[in-house]
Amino acid sequence: MTRSRRRVPARPVVALLTDFGLSDPYAGQMKGVVASLAPEARILDISHGVPAHDILAGALYLDASLPWLPLGCVIVAVVDPGVGTTRRLVGVESRGRLVLAPDNGLLSLLLTRGGVDGAWVFPSQDMGSATFHGRDIFAPLAAALAKGQPPRERGQPVDPGTLVILPGLDPVLDGDRLQARVLHVDRFGNLILNLRIGEYGAMLGAAHGVAMDMPRAPRIVRAATYAELPPGALGLLAGSQGFFEMAMDRESAARSTGLHPGDAVTLVLSGETAAGPDRIPGVVSER
Amino acid sequence: MTRSRRRVPARPVVALLTDFGLSDPYAGQMKGVVASLAPEARILDISHGVPAHDILAGALYLDASLPWLPLGCVIVAVVDPGVGTTRRLVGVESRGRLVLAPDNGLLSLLLTRGGVDGAWVFPSQDMGSATFHGRDIFAPLAAALAKGQPPRERGQPVDPGTLVILPGLDPVLDGDRLQARVLHVDRFGNLILNLRIGEYGAMLGAAHGVAMDMPRAPRIVRAATYAELPPGALGLLAGSQGFFEMAMDRESAARSTGLHPGDAVTLVLSGETAAGPDRIPGVVSER
Amino acid sequence: MTRSRRRVPARPVVALLTDFGLSDPYAGQMKGVVASLAPEARILDISHGVPAHDILAGALYLDASLPWLPLGCVIVAVVDPGVGTTRRLVGVESRGRLVLAPDNGLLSLLLTRGGVDGAWVFPSQDMGSATFHGRDIFAPLAAALAKGQPPRERGQPVDPGTLVILPGLDPVLDGDRLQARVLHVDRFGNLILNLRIGEYGAMLGAAHGVAMDMPRAPRIVRAATYAELPPGALGLLAGSQGFFEMAMDRESAARSTGLHPGDAVTLVLSGETAAGPDRIPGVVSER
Repeated sequence: MTRSRRRVPARPVVALLTDFGLSDPYAGQMKGVVASLAPEARILDISHGVPAHDILAGALYLDASLPWLPLGCVIVAVVDPGVGTTRRLVGVESRGRLVLAPDNGLLSLLLTRGGVDGAWVFPSQDMGSATFHGRDIFAPLAAALAKGQPPRERGQPVDPGTLVILPGLDPVLDGDRLQARVLHVDRFGNLILNLRIGEYGAMLGAAHGVAMDMPRAPRIVRAATYAELPPGALGLLAGSQGFFEMAMDRESAARSTGLHPGDAVTLVLSGETAAGPDRIPGVVSER
Repeated sequence: MTRSRRRVPARPVVALLTDFGLSDPYAGQMKGVVASLAPEARILDISHGVPAHDILAGALYLDASLPWLPLGCVIVAVVDPGVGTTRRLVGVESRGRLVLAPDNGLLSLLLTRGGVDGAWVFPSQDMGSATFHGRDIFAPLAAALAKGQPPRERGQPVDPGTLVILPGLDPVLDGDRLQARVLHVDRFGNLILNLRIGEYGAMLGAAHGVAMDMPRAPRIVRAATYAELPPGALGLLAGSQGFFEMAMDRESAARSTGLHPGDAVTLVLSGETAAGPDRIPGVVSER
Repeated sequence: MTRSRRRVPARPVVALLTDFGLSDPYAGQMKGVVASLAPEARILDISHGVPAHDILAGALYLDASLPWLPLGCVIVAVVDPGVGTTRRLVGVESRGRLVLAPDNGLLSLLLTRGGVDGAWVFPSQDMGSATFHGRDIFAPLAAALAKGQPPRERGQPVDPGTLVILPGLDPVLDGDRLQARVLHVDRFGNLILNLRIGEYGAMLGAAHGVAMDMPRAPRIVRAATYAELPPGALGLLAGSQGFFEMAMDRESAARSTGLHPGDAVTLVLSGETAAGPDRIPGVVSER
């Protein structure tokens, strides 16, 4: 039996994360529904710019953004190519927030990180349109839960271990080779890797050097900030999203390396320093 | 004499729909003005991504979004290539909301749908800048009306029948051929047609089959959800915006068909079923 | 000794201006922090679409938007390629609002315009992540100041004359030739020049004619609105952002002229009218 740590705040907050973009009126219609049902609630856009149908990027956005959102808020996450099919509509409580999402892997990074204090399956059939559950099912549910209705009054508890987790999310260490993966390329061309700072900071800090196993790959410079990287150098930084990222100063690391979201990246770590793990510049404890 | 059905809500709501995009600070400045004049109001973005100067798409966004916005709200709709000219600045009350817009066809779908309970013309000359009425005329007017000032105190009543309606918005049925039009292509490449679900659902549901009169056009599959479409199939769905749409599963129907906004589409309906109108999958009553 | 004119409003307002874009969750995380620390505050997006690392465009957005924001608000402006380096983190009070920004030139147009009633330097080292000061330093600082904490409790007063101003921002008048510069190209292709309406309105209005010193440059038509420009004509208008702009009616002046942000533009003014300065159409006094 899980124990809820979520306290409903004085002012309800509904935070939205979707792949709807902002060109169409879809996000606006979701907000209209929340505003109609919870006039007092704050509506907060995490982003509507998850690349269309990119569940992996959505999983990153969600995991990286959750700790910065108000305690007690309800997060609606919709990257849902299977809308209207039998995929389940679920909610999980994590670190004092409640997240509603399709059960298609979007919760993967939250689930593998741990700290889930409850999960529910909500009914999703025969309600509203068949193609826009974000507006017709998620939004009214979020409004009710944000105002304080307990999830158990709307759904059935479920074992979080039964929720879908995307395959291939874990890095693999093979000798001195660390096989990682690009989770996302951001606006600035920074490559966010599936290497959590909390888990890989010591290893990467202890390595004497880090190189990338790619033809003509530049040597990797470990740095704390973009601006301290020499022109043209590829940096490995403890990024702001809780993961290591490869970046350049005022240039696109994605364009320079040719790497895309989902691509594999092999980092070659050279001999540890005698003095033991150094602290990699810029590694701060995660929130 | 029309009779207002609009009730001003406890918390005023101003909803914005423009073609300003979000790269420039234009939408932000409009919001700044509303926030200055109505500090207690909620400001809700329907979208600022109407394609530049695309009055037809704006008309769709407006008609499709209005029912999902809080009752009593004021909607400011600005797609206004004729800003600063003699085009009128008008307001209509529709289904319990008040919509402010240039009188250039942006209200077309609201007007042809019916349910207009009042219309006003507002003064627009000699106020603020000549090129940004959205910020300098619409925003302060919206703030005042959202807070409860009656429209008649700011403008003159006008016959809704005198407002501009875009030509060519009505589909034409000619024997078994239904001539429709693409109103908008959304982010996912879905083609939204000018076929209201409420008006054309029975006809399209009753047809034994639906084809598109285009060289090499794929057969059209009627479906309720994107995910039930076979790979590469073009679906006809009762979409979430109140209109039928042509779509594919995780592919762009626009790219596949080469159709663009405004293009004509001829649907060929084959013999009705003996049993009479079937219910087309996914057709739900409109809100 | 400067004297603050800022009054903290009943409802705190934090306005955000960044080059983060809206595809990534960065702006959303900043808002999450503000919402966590100041639940009662309104959060207002000026724009997150400043072109990446374009400090000049950011300076324009800031100067053009400030007068339209609620009095007493706190504005966070982040276009910050030097994040994590020794560039200072500063605040200035201007026309009743408080602006927080990196000291990299982003405040240039505010500073050259005058009306600065105070400036402070805030500590920026050893706080949060090294690469996302917008979320980790600016946002919590803004929340505190928006709620009423005086800037002097968080930072040290500084002479505004020591703050960084971008070079080359002033137009140069050489005989009948006015050397200007493109500050920004907006969504509609309008070219916003570094010619403040208040400073250059009389000169441009008095000129008999204005031409552009460019091969094959079209003659420039002075106009008050886009719609009054003949097809294909390049207009010079007193724009809505406080500066003159070159524009076309429903066409992109940027595409037509080939001009880009930062480019130099030389306007050739022909003989003043005998009657003295005419009023250029559409010139209104700045707010």
